[in-house]
Amino acid sequence: MAFLTRNEVFSCFVFYAVLLVIKMYILAIITGQVRLRKKAFANPEDALRHGGLQFHREDPYVERCRRAHMNDLENILPFLFLGAIYSMIGPSLPVARLHFLVFFLARVLHSVAYLFALRAPTRSLAYIVAQIPCVSMALQILVAVAAYA
Amino acid sequence: MAFLTRNEVFSCFVFYAVLLVIKMYILAIITGQVRLRKKAFANPEDALRHGGLQFHREDPYVERCRRAHMNDLENILPFLFLGAIYSMIGPSLPVARLHFLVFFLARVLHSVAYLFALRAPTRSLAYIVAQIPCVSMALQILVAVAAYA
Amino acid sequence: MAFLTRNEVFSCFVFYAVLLVIKMYILAIITGQVRLRKKAFANPEDALRHGGLQFHREDPYVERCRRAHMNDLENILPFLFLGAIYSMIGPSLPVARLHFLVFFLARVLHSVAYLFALRAPTRSLAYIVAQIPCVSMALQILVAVAAYA
Repeated sequence: MAFLTRNEVFSCFVFYAVLLVIKMYILAIITGQVRLRKKAFANPEDALRHGGLQFHREDPYVERCRRAHMNDLENILPFLFLGAIYSMIGPSLPVARLHFLVFFLARVLHSVAYLFALRAPTRSLAYIVAQIPCVSMALQILVAVAAYA
Repeated sequence: MAFLTRNEVFSCFVFYAVLLVIKMYILAIITGQVRLRKKAFANPEDALRHGGLQFHREDPYVERCRRAHMNDLENILPFLFLGAIYSMIGPSLPVARLHFLVFFLARVLHSVAYLFALRAPTRSLAYIVAQIPCVSMALQILVAVAAYA
Repeated sequence: MAFLTRNEVFSCFVFYAVLLVIKMYILAIITGQVRLRKKAFANPEDALRHGGLQFHREDPYVERCRRAHMNDLENILPFLFLGAIYSMIGPSLPVARLHFLVFFLARVLHSVAYLFALRAPTRSLAYIVAQIPCVSMALQILVAVAAYA
Protein backbone atom coordinates (compact mmCIF):
# COMPACT_ATOMS: atom_id res chain seq x y z
CA MET A 1 0.00 0.00 0.00
CA ALA A 2 3.13 2.14 -0.23
CA PHE A 3 1.98 4.70 -2.78
CA LEU A 4 -1.41 5.30 -1.24
CA THR A 5 -0.18 5.70 2.33
CA ARG A 6 2.61 8.03 1.19
CA ASN A 7 0.09 10.46 -0.28
CA GLU A 8 -2.84 11.53 1.91
CA VAL A 9 -4.33 13.78 -0.78
CA PHE A 10 -4.35 10.90 -3.24
CA SER A 11 -6.03 8.61 -0.70
CA CYS A 12 -8.67 11.25 -0.02
CA PHE A 13 -9.26 11.60 -3.77
CA VAL A 14 -9.53 7.83 -4.19
CA PHE A 15 -12.18 7.63 -1.47
CA TYR A 16 -14.57 10.05 -3.19
CA ALA A 17 -13.68 8.80 -6.67
CA VAL A 18 -14.60 5.21 -5.82
CA LEU A 19 -17.85 6.34 -4.20
CA LEU A 20 -18.71 8.12 -7.46
CA VAL A 21 -17.89 5.01 -9.51
CA ILE A 22 -20.27 3.06 -7.25
CA LYS A 23 -22.85 5.83 -7.79
CA MET A 24 -22.52 5.27 -11.55
CA TYR A 25 -22.95 1.51 -11.09
CA ILE A 26 -26.12 2.16 -9.07
CA LEU A 27 -27.46 4.31 -11.93
CA ALA A 28 -26.89 1.38 -14.32
CA ILE A 29 -28.76 -0.95 -11.96
CA ILE A 30 -31.65 1.51 -11.68
CA THR A 31 -31.83 1.75 -15.49
CA GLY A 32 -32.02 -2.04 -15.74
CA GLN A 33 -34.74 -2.24 -13.08
CA VAL A 34 -36.79 0.49 -14.82
CA ARG A 35 -36.46 -1.40 -18.13
CA LEU A 36 -37.88 -4.53 -16.43
CA ARG A 37 -40.68 -2.67 -14.63
CA LYS A 38 -41.71 -0.55 -17.65
CA LYS A 39 -41.07 -3.46 -20.03
CA ALA A 40 -38.99 -1.32 -22.40
CA PHE A 41 -35.95 -3.09 -23.86
CA ALA A 42 -33.27 -1.76 -26.19
CA ASN A 43 -32.66 -5.21 -27.72
CA PRO A 44 -35.19 -7.56 -29.35
CA GLU A 45 -33.56 -10.60 -27.68
CA ASP A 46 -34.26 -9.05 -24.26
CA ALA A 47 -37.84 -8.19 -25.23
CA LEU A 48 -38.44 -11.78 -26.41
CA ARG A 49 -37.32 -13.10 -23.03
CA HIS A 50 -39.67 -10.73 -21.21
CA GLY A 51 -42.95 -11.17 -23.05
CA GLY A 52 -42.46 -10.42 -26.75
CA LEU A 53 -41.11 -8.10 -29.43
CA GLN A 54 -43.71 -5.44 -28.59
CA PHE A 55 -41.54 -4.61 -25.56
CA HIS A 56 -38.61 -3.71 -27.81
CA ARG A 57 -39.41 -0.04 -27.33
CA GLU A 58 -38.31 3.21 -25.74
CA ASP A 59 -39.64 4.60 -22.50
CA PRO A 60 -39.28 8.24 -21.39
CA TYR A 61 -38.10 7.34 -17.90
CA VAL A 62 -35.57 4.81 -19.18
CA GLU A 63 -34.24 7.54 -21.47
CA ARG A 64 -34.02 9.89 -18.48
CA CYS A 65 -31.95 7.32 -16.56
CA ARG A 66 -29.70 6.93 -19.60
CA ARG A 67 -29.18 10.69 -19.88
CA ALA A 68 -28.24 10.82 -16.19
CA HIS A 69 -25.73 8.02 -16.74
CA MET A 70 -24.37 9.64 -19.90
CA ASN A 71 -23.83 12.92 -18.08
CA ASP A 72 -21.88 11.01 -15.43
CA LEU A 73 -19.62 9.55 -18.09
CA GLU A 74 -19.02 13.06 -19.45
CA ASN A 75 -18.13 14.48 -16.06
CA ILE A 76 -17.12 11.84 -13.51
CA LEU A 77 -14.71 9.99 -15.83
CA PRO A 78 -12.62 13.15 -16.54
CA PHE A 79 -12.67 13.83 -12.78
CA LEU A 80 -11.07 10.42 -12.17
CA PHE A 81 -8.15 11.63 -14.28
CA LEU A 82 -7.95 15.25 -13.10
CA GLY A 83 -8.22 14.34 -9.42
CA ALA A 84 -5.43 11.74 -9.65
CA ILE A 85 -3.04 14.15 -11.41
CA TYR A 86 -3.99 17.03 -9.12
CA SER A 87 -3.10 14.84 -6.13
CA MET A 88 0.44 14.59 -7.54
CA ILE A 89 1.14 18.33 -7.81
CA GLY A 90 1.29 18.81 -4.06
CA PRO A 91 -1.92 20.63 -3.03
CA SER A 92 -2.64 21.08 0.68
CA LEU A 93 -4.96 18.40 2.07
CA PRO A 94 -7.79 20.76 3.23
CA VAL A 95 -7.90 22.57 -0.13
CA ALA A 96 -7.78 19.30 -2.08
CA ARG A 97 -10.46 17.70 0.10
CA LEU A 98 -12.68 20.72 -0.54
CA HIS A 99 -12.28 20.20 -4.31
CA PHE A 100 -13.18 16.50 -4.05
CA LEU A 101 -16.05 16.99 -1.61
CA VAL A 102 -17.72 19.76 -3.63
CA PHE A 103 -17.52 17.63 -6.78
CA PHE A 104 -18.83 14.56 -4.96
CA LEU A 105 -21.80 16.31 -3.36
CA ALA A 106 -22.73 18.23 -6.51
CA ARG A 107 -22.66 15.06 -8.64
CA VAL A 108 -24.83 13.17 -6.14
CA LEU A 109 -27.28 16.09 -6.24
CA HIS A 110 -27.11 16.03 -10.06
CA SER A 111 -28.19 12.38 -10.15
CA VAL A 112 -30.98 12.97 -7.63
CA ALA A 113 -32.19 16.02 -9.59
CA TYR A 114 -32.15 13.98 -12.81
CA LEU A 115 -33.93 10.89 -11.48
CA PHE A 116 -36.62 12.88 -9.65
CA ALA A 117 -36.92 15.48 -12.43
CA LEU A 118 -36.46 18.28 -9.89
CA ARG A 119 -37.51 21.73 -11.03
CA ALA A 120 -35.02 23.51 -13.33
CA PRO A 121 -32.41 24.79 -12.84
CA THR A 122 -31.55 22.45 -9.90
CA ARG A 123 -29.81 19.89 -12.12
CA SER A 124 -27.97 22.53 -14.18
CA LEU A 125 -26.76 24.28 -11.02
CA ALA A 126 -25.45 20.97 -9.65
CA TYR A 127 -23.62 20.43 -12.94
CA ILE A 128 -22.06 23.91 -12.82
CA VAL A 129 -21.04 23.63 -9.16
CA ALA A 130 -19.36 20.27 -9.90
CA GLN A 131 -17.45 21.82 -12.78
CA ILE A 132 -15.85 24.50 -10.59
CA PRO A 133 -13.41 22.17 -8.76
CA CYS A 134 -12.69 20.40 -12.07
CA VAL A 135 -11.74 23.61 -13.87
CA SER A 136 -9.77 24.69 -10.81
CA MET A 137 -7.79 21.43 -10.80
CA ALA A 138 -7.27 21.55 -14.59
CA LEU A 139 -5.82 25.07 -14.42
CA GLN A 140 -3.56 24.27 -11.45
CA ILE A 141 -2.25 21.18 -13.26
CA LEU A 142 -1.59 23.17 -16.43
CA VAL A 143 0.43 25.72 -14.47
CA ALA A 144 2.41 22.92 -12.82
CA VAL A 145 3.38 21.16 -16.07
CA ALA A 146 3.38 24.06 -18.57
CA ALA A 147 7.18 24.00 -18.67
CA TYR A 148 7.09 20.48 -20.14
CA ALA A 149 4.79 21.19 -23.10
CA MET B 1 10.27 1.19 -16.82
CA ALA B 2 10.85 1.49 -13.10
CA PHE B 3 7.27 1.77 -11.83
CA LEU B 4 5.89 -1.04 -13.96
CA THR B 5 8.62 -3.56 -13.16
CA ARG B 6 8.40 -2.74 -9.44
CA ASN B 7 4.74 -3.78 -9.33
CA GLU B 8 3.79 -7.14 -10.88
CA VAL B 9 0.09 -6.72 -10.06
CA PHE B 10 0.02 -3.37 -11.87
CA SER B 11 1.75 -4.86 -14.91
CA CYS B 12 -0.75 -7.71 -14.97
CA PHE B 13 -3.60 -5.19 -14.75
CA VAL B 14 -2.10 -3.08 -17.56
CA PHE B 15 -1.92 -6.13 -19.83
CA TYR B 16 -5.65 -6.91 -19.63
CA ALA B 17 -6.63 -3.23 -19.53
CA VAL B 18 -4.82 -2.46 -22.80
CA LEU B 19 -6.35 -5.53 -24.46
CA LEU B 20 -9.78 -4.21 -23.47
CA VAL B 21 -8.97 -0.75 -24.88
CA ILE B 22 -8.01 -2.45 -28.16
CA LYS B 23 -11.31 -4.41 -27.97
CA MET B 24 -13.14 -1.06 -27.74
CA TYR B 25 -11.21 0.28 -30.73
CA ILE B 26 -12.19 -2.84 -32.71
CA LEU B 27 -15.85 -2.19 -31.84
CA ALA B 28 -15.49 1.34 -33.25
CA ILE B 29 -13.96 -0.05 -36.46
CA ILE B 30 -16.79 -2.61 -36.78
CA THR B 31 -19.37 0.18 -36.34
CA GLY B 32 -17.71 2.17 -39.13
CA GLN B 33 -17.62 -0.84 -41.46
CA VAL B 34 -21.28 -1.63 -40.79
CA ARG B 35 -22.16 2.01 -41.56
CA LEU B 36 -20.39 1.71 -44.91
CA ARG B 37 -21.91 -1.69 -45.76
CA LYS B 38 -25.46 -0.79 -44.68
CA LYS B 39 -25.07 2.75 -46.04
CA ALA B 40 -26.38 4.32 -42.81
CA PHE B 41 -24.58 7.50 -41.79
CA ALA B 42 -25.08 9.69 -38.74
CA ASN B 43 -23.91 12.82 -40.57
CA PRO B 44 -25.23 14.30 -43.85
CA GLU B 45 -21.67 15.11 -45.00
CA ASP B 46 -20.77 11.40 -44.76
CA ALA B 47 -23.96 10.36 -46.58
CA LEU B 48 -23.22 12.84 -49.38
CA ARG B 49 -19.80 11.29 -49.89
CA HIS B 50 -21.26 7.80 -50.05
CA GLY B 51 -24.16 8.18 -52.45
CA GLY B 52 -26.53 10.87 -51.22
CA LEU B 53 -28.55 12.33 -48.39
CA GLN B 54 -30.96 9.37 -48.41
CA PHE B 55 -28.21 7.43 -46.61
CA HIS B 56 -28.29 9.87 -43.68
CA ARG B 57 -30.36 7.36 -41.71
CA GLU B 58 -30.36 4.94 -38.82
CA ASP B 59 -29.85 1.21 -39.11
CA PRO B 60 -30.79 -1.32 -36.40
CA TYR B 61 -27.46 -3.14 -36.57
CA VAL B 62 -25.46 0.10 -36.44
CA GLU B 63 -27.46 1.02 -33.35
CA ARG B 64 -26.67 -2.39 -31.84
CA CYS B 65 -22.93 -1.79 -32.39
CA ARG B 66 -23.28 1.62 -30.78
CA ARG B 67 -25.04 0.17 -27.72
CA ALA B 68 -22.25 -2.41 -27.35
CA HIS B 69 -19.66 0.39 -27.52
CA MET B 70 -21.62 2.56 -25.10
CA ASN B 71 -21.86 -0.28 -22.60
CA ASP B 72 -18.07 -0.66 -22.85
CA LEU B 73 -17.64 3.03 -22.00
CA GLU B 74 -19.89 2.58 -18.97
CA ASN B 75 -17.98 -0.45 -17.69
CA ILE B 76 -14.46 -0.73 -19.11
CA LEU B 77 -13.52 2.92 -18.48
CA PRO B 78 -14.30 2.71 -14.72
CA PHE B 79 -12.35 -0.58 -14.66
CA LEU B 80 -9.28 1.25 -16.00
CA PHE B 81 -9.47 3.41 -12.87
CA LEU B 82 -10.44 0.78 -10.30
CA GLY B 83 -7.86 -1.75 -11.52
CA ALA B 84 -5.03 0.79 -11.36
CA ILE B 85 -5.90 1.88 -7.81
CA TYR B 86 -6.52 -1.70 -6.67
CA SER B 87 -3.01 -2.59 -7.90
CA MET B 88 -1.65 -0.01 -5.45
CA ILE B 89 -3.29 -1.40 -2.28
CA GLY B 90 -1.12 -4.52 -2.22
CA PRO B 91 -3.34 -7.44 -3.31
CA SER B 92 -1.70 -10.84 -3.89
CA LEU B 93 -0.87 -11.48 -7.56
CA PRO B 94 -3.05 -14.63 -7.99
CA VAL B 95 -6.12 -12.95 -6.46
CA ALA B 96 -5.59 -9.77 -8.47
CA ARG B 97 -5.03 -11.71 -11.71
CA LEU B 98 -8.30 -13.55 -11.07
CA HIS B 99 -10.12 -10.20 -10.78
CA PHE B 100 -8.62 -8.89 -14.03
CA LEU B 101 -9.08 -12.15 -15.96
CA VAL B 102 -12.74 -12.59 -14.97
CA PHE B 103 -13.47 -9.01 -16.01
CA PHE B 104 -11.58 -9.39 -19.27
CA LEU B 105 -13.25 -12.66 -20.31
CA ALA B 106 -16.73 -11.51 -19.28
CA ARG B 107 -16.39 -8.24 -21.24
CA VAL B 108 -15.19 -10.08 -24.36
CA LEU B 109 -18.21 -12.40 -24.02
CA HIS B 110 -20.43 -9.33 -23.53
CA SER B 111 -19.28 -7.87 -26.86
CA VAL B 112 -19.70 -11.20 -28.67
CA ALA B 113 -23.18 -11.66 -27.16
CA TYR B 114 -24.11 -8.12 -28.25
CA LEU B 115 -22.79 -8.29 -31.80
CA PHE B 116 -24.28 -11.74 -32.49
CA ALA B 117 -27.50 -10.99 -30.58
CA LEU B 118 -27.08 -14.18 -28.55
CA ARG B 119 -30.17 -15.41 -26.74
CA ALA B 120 -30.99 -13.55 -23.50
CA PRO B 121 -29.77 -13.57 -20.81
CA THR B 122 -26.25 -14.35 -22.15
CA ARG B 123 -25.29 -10.70 -22.50
CA SER B 124 -26.81 -9.68 -19.16
CA LEU B 125 -25.01 -12.55 -17.39
CA ALA B 126 -21.69 -11.47 -18.94
CA TYR B 127 -22.36 -7.93 -17.70
CA ILE B 128 -23.13 -9.15 -14.17
CA VAL B 129 -20.10 -11.48 -14.01
CA ALA B 130 -17.85 -8.58 -15.13
CA GLN B 131 -19.29 -6.37 -12.40
CA ILE B 132 -18.33 -8.80 -9.61
CA PRO B 133 -14.55 -8.13 -9.71
CA CYS B 134 -15.27 -4.39 -10.13
CA VAL B 135 -17.45 -4.22 -7.01
CA SER B 136 -14.92 -6.39 -5.16
CA MET B 137 -12.08 -4.02 -6.10
CA ALA B 138 -14.16 -0.93 -5.25
CA LEU B 139 -14.98 -2.25 -1.77
CA GLN B 140 -11.38 -3.31 -1.04
CA ILE B 141 -10.15 0.14 -2.11
CA LEU B 142 -12.74 1.89 0.07
CA VAL B 143 -11.61 -0.15 3.09
CA ALA B 144 -7.97 0.71 2.34
CA VAL B 145 -8.51 4.49 2.10
CA ALA B 146 -11.52 5.01 4.39
CA ALA B 147 -9.28 6.56 7.04
CA TYR B 148 -8.45 9.43 4.66
CA ALA B 149 -12.01 10.50 3.84
CA MET C 1 5.25 17.61 -7.09
CA ALA C 2 7.80 14.80 -6.81
CA PHE C 3 6.29 12.29 -9.23
CA LEU C 4 5.57 14.82 -11.96
CA THR C 5 8.97 16.49 -11.90
CA ARG C 6 10.74 13.11 -11.87
CA ASN C 7 9.15 12.13 -15.18
CA GLU C 8 9.33 14.64 -18.03
CA VAL C 9 7.42 12.40 -20.43
CA PHE C 10 4.55 12.10 -17.95
CA SER C 11 4.46 15.89 -17.45
CA CYS C 12 4.37 16.39 -21.22
CA PHE C 13 1.52 13.88 -21.47
CA VAL C 14 -0.39 15.58 -18.65
CA PHE C 15 -0.14 18.95 -20.42
CA TYR C 16 -1.86 17.75 -23.61
CA ALA C 17 -4.25 15.47 -21.72
CA VAL C 18 -5.58 18.32 -19.58
CA LEU C 19 -5.97 20.55 -22.64
CA LEU C 20 -8.08 17.82 -24.22
CA VAL C 21 -10.22 17.50 -21.08
CA ILE C 22 -10.82 21.27 -21.26
CA LYS C 23 -11.67 20.82 -24.97
CA MET C 24 -14.33 18.29 -23.94
CA TYR C 25 -15.71 20.69 -21.33
CA ILE C 26 -15.94 23.40 -24.00
CA LEU C 27 -17.92 21.01 -26.21
CA ALA C 28 -20.37 20.49 -23.33
CA ILE C 29 -20.74 24.26 -22.91
CA ILE C 30 -21.33 24.70 -26.66
CA THR C 31 -24.02 21.99 -26.56
CA GLY C 32 -25.76 23.80 -23.71
CA GLN C 33 -25.61 27.14 -25.51
CA VAL C 34 -27.00 25.61 -28.73
CA ARG C 35 -29.85 24.06 -26.71
CA LEU C 36 -30.71 27.51 -25.33
CA ARG C 37 -30.41 29.27 -28.70
CA LYS C 38 -32.32 26.62 -30.68
CA LYS C 39 -34.74 26.06 -27.77
CA ALA C 40 -34.34 22.27 -27.91
CA PHE C 41 -34.23 20.58 -24.52
CA ALA C 42 -33.76 16.93 -23.64
CA ASN C 43 -35.78 17.27 -20.43
CA PRO C 44 -39.35 18.56 -19.99
CA GLU C 45 -38.36 20.43 -16.79
CA ASP C 46 -35.78 22.42 -18.78
CA ALA C 47 -38.29 23.13 -21.58
CA LEU C 48 -40.83 24.37 -19.02
CA ARG C 49 -38.31 26.84 -17.66
CA HIS C 50 -37.52 28.15 -21.14
CA GLY C 51 -40.94 28.72 -22.66
CA GLY C 52 -42.96 25.51 -22.53
CA LEU C 53 -43.15 21.79 -23.21
CA GLN C 54 -43.10 22.35 -26.99
CA PHE C 55 -39.36 22.99 -26.61
CA HIS C 56 -38.83 19.47 -25.25
CA ARG C 57 -37.57 18.38 -28.66
CA GLU C 58 -34.55 17.32 -30.67
CA ASP C 59 -32.53 19.61 -32.92
CA PRO C 60 -30.13 18.39 -35.63
CA TYR C 61 -27.32 20.70 -34.56
CA VAL C 62 -27.69 19.77 -30.89
CA GLU C 63 -27.44 16.12 -31.95
CA ARG C 64 -24.30 16.96 -33.95
CA CYS C 65 -22.71 18.53 -30.86
CA ARG C 66 -23.65 15.44 -28.86
CA ARG C 67 -22.09 13.09 -31.42
CA ALA C 68 -18.88 15.16 -31.32
CA HIS C 69 -18.85 14.90 -27.53
CA MET C 70 -19.63 11.17 -27.61
CA ASN C 71 -16.77 10.56 -30.05
CA ASP C 72 -14.47 12.39 -27.62
CA LEU C 73 -15.55 10.08 -24.80
CA GLU C 74 -14.80 7.07 -27.02
CA ASN C 75 -11.32 8.30 -27.93
CA ILE C 76 -9.95 10.90 -25.51
CA LEU C 77 -10.85 8.96 -22.35
CA PRO C 78 -8.88 5.83 -23.44
CA PHE C 79 -6.00 8.16 -24.40
CA LEU C 80 -5.93 9.47 -20.81
CA PHE C 81 -5.20 5.89 -19.73
CA LEU C 82 -2.86 4.82 -22.54
CA GLY C 83 -0.77 8.01 -22.38
CA ALA C 84 -0.28 7.71 -18.61
CA ILE C 85 0.84 4.07 -18.82
CA TYR C 86 2.99 4.73 -21.89
CA SER C 87 4.79 7.47 -19.94
CA MET C 88 5.82 4.81 -17.41
CA ILE C 89 7.51 2.39 -19.86
CA GLY C 90 10.41 4.74 -20.54
CA PRO C 91 9.91 6.20 -24.03
CA SER C 92 12.25 8.95 -25.22
CA LEU C 93 10.82 12.44 -24.71
CA PRO C 94 10.85 13.51 -28.41
CA VAL C 95 9.09 10.31 -29.55
CA ALA C 96 6.55 10.50 -26.73
CA ARG C 97 5.86 14.20 -27.36
CA LEU C 98 5.22 13.38 -31.04
CA HIS C 99 2.62 10.77 -29.99
CA PHE C 100 0.85 13.24 -27.69
CA LEU C 101 1.03 16.18 -30.10
CA VAL C 102 -0.33 14.23 -33.08
CA PHE C 103 -3.24 12.96 -30.97
CA PHE C 104 -3.92 16.43 -29.58
CA LEU C 105 -3.91 18.22 -32.93
CA ALA C 106 -5.94 15.51 -34.69
CA ARG C 107 -8.60 15.54 -31.95
CA VAL C 108 -8.89 19.34 -32.08
CA LEU C 109 -9.31 19.08 -35.86
CA HIS C 110 -11.90 16.33 -35.31
CA SER C 111 -14.00 18.62 -33.13
CA VAL C 112 -13.68 21.52 -35.59
CA ALA C 113 -14.61 19.24 -38.50
CA TYR C 114 -17.62 17.97 -36.57
CA LEU C 115 -18.95 21.35 -35.39
CA PHE C 116 -18.51 23.03 -38.79
CA ALA C 117 -19.65 19.92 -40.73
CA LEU C 118 -16.52 20.08 -42.87
CA ARG C 119 -16.64 18.10 -46.09
CA ALA C 120 -16.06 14.32 -45.69
CA PRO C 121 -13.65 12.71 -45.12
CA THR C 122 -11.99 15.51 -43.08
CA ARG C 123 -13.47 14.33 -39.79
CA SER C 124 -12.81 10.64 -40.47
CA LEU C 125 -9.21 11.38 -41.42
CA ALA C 126 -8.73 13.33 -38.17
CA TYR C 127 -10.14 10.34 -36.28
CA ILE C 128 -7.80 7.91 -38.04
CA VAL C 129 -4.71 10.11 -37.57
CA ALA C 130 -5.53 10.40 -33.84
CA GLN C 131 -5.82 6.62 -33.56
CA ILE C 132 -2.29 6.03 -34.89
CA PRO C 133 -0.42 7.23 -31.75
CA CYS C 134 -3.00 5.41 -29.59
CA VAL C 135 -2.48 2.07 -31.31
CA SER C 136 1.28 2.68 -31.25
CA MET C 137 1.20 3.31 -27.49
CA ALA C 138 -1.09 0.32 -26.86
CA LEU C 139 1.25 -2.06 -28.73
CA GLN C 140 4.39 -0.71 -27.02
CA ILE C 141 2.70 -1.12 -23.62
CA LEU C 142 1.63 -4.69 -24.42
CA VAL C 143 5.21 -5.58 -25.38
CA ALA C 144 6.48 -4.03 -22.13
CA VAL C 145 4.09 -5.95 -19.84
CA ALA C 146 3.44 -9.14 -21.83
CA ALA C 147 5.63 -11.13 -19.42
CA TYR C 148 3.19 -10.36 -16.58
CA ALA C 149 0.01 -11.64 -18.24
